[in-house]
Amino acid sequence: MPSDEQEIRTVHSVWIDAVNAGDLARLLTMVAEDVVFLGPGQAPFGREGFASNFVTAHQQMRICCTSELEEVIVAGELACTRSRDAVSVTPRAGGKTAQFAGHRMTVYRKQRDGRWLLSRDAHTVSAVA
Amino acid sequence: MPSDEQEIRTVHSVWIDAVNAGDLARLLTMVAEDVVFLGPGQAPFGREGFASNFVTAHQQMRICCTSELEEVIVAGELACTRSRDAVSVTPRAGGKTAQFAGHRMTVYRKQRDGRWLLSRDAHTVSAVA
Repeated sequence: MPSDEQEIRTVHSVWIDAVNAGDLARLLTMVAEDVVFLGPGQAPFGREGFASNFVTAHQQMRICCTSELEEVIVAGELACTRSRDAVSVTPRAGGKTAQFAGHRMTVYRKQRDGRWLLSRDAHTVSAVA
Repeated sequence: MPSDEQEIRTVHSVWIDAVNAGDLARLLTMVAEDVVFLGPGQAPFGREGFASNFVTAHQQMRICCTSELEEVIVAGELACTRSRDAVSVTPRAGGKTAQFAGHRMTVYRKQRDGRWLLSRDAHTVSAVA
């Protein structure tokens, strides 16, 4: 059986693949009902805000995200990860690709069925000068 | 005896007071040896980077920080908080006060002696338009 840390590493990897594939349905199976996302210059948002932001972004842009997991801390039912993220964004209507980079701290909570769901997420990703 | 949540609420409050008082010595007693701070547009930094950034900032500016604790999650030796922060910064040399706002997610770890130390911190604080 994989360890909690291995499970979380898999969840992280599947998450990034689903982001790049525009697979919102998959992503929504991976977040807690009460999930909260924090990012620079925006109000915190939850599940519905995530879904609408994600759909809008993928309609307007091609998005390619990479994320290097730098740390996984597990304590019982709670886990915290830190990753170094980069995102390139290209308008579907044409135009230059913009680069963004930063870090992300994510809190996962283990469910009764053993799954780890993304529960809190704060990123510092901003435009690369 | 105060609960873990009460202890963390106290630590959060003492932290903000020490930031506003410019009390670096106090702050350094409250962070873990391997602490990591994340913020928009800057590379992650640890204890030494925190100390030098803090000294420089307080030498150049008067800083007033407020932080409203929105959530405390405790699981064993690990805890996670979310706060809504605002910072006003006034150059000591004179000039306009600038306003910054955002959120902060902080991870605390309980030590063998029962103290909760700040271990990871990611903020999204940016200039208010």
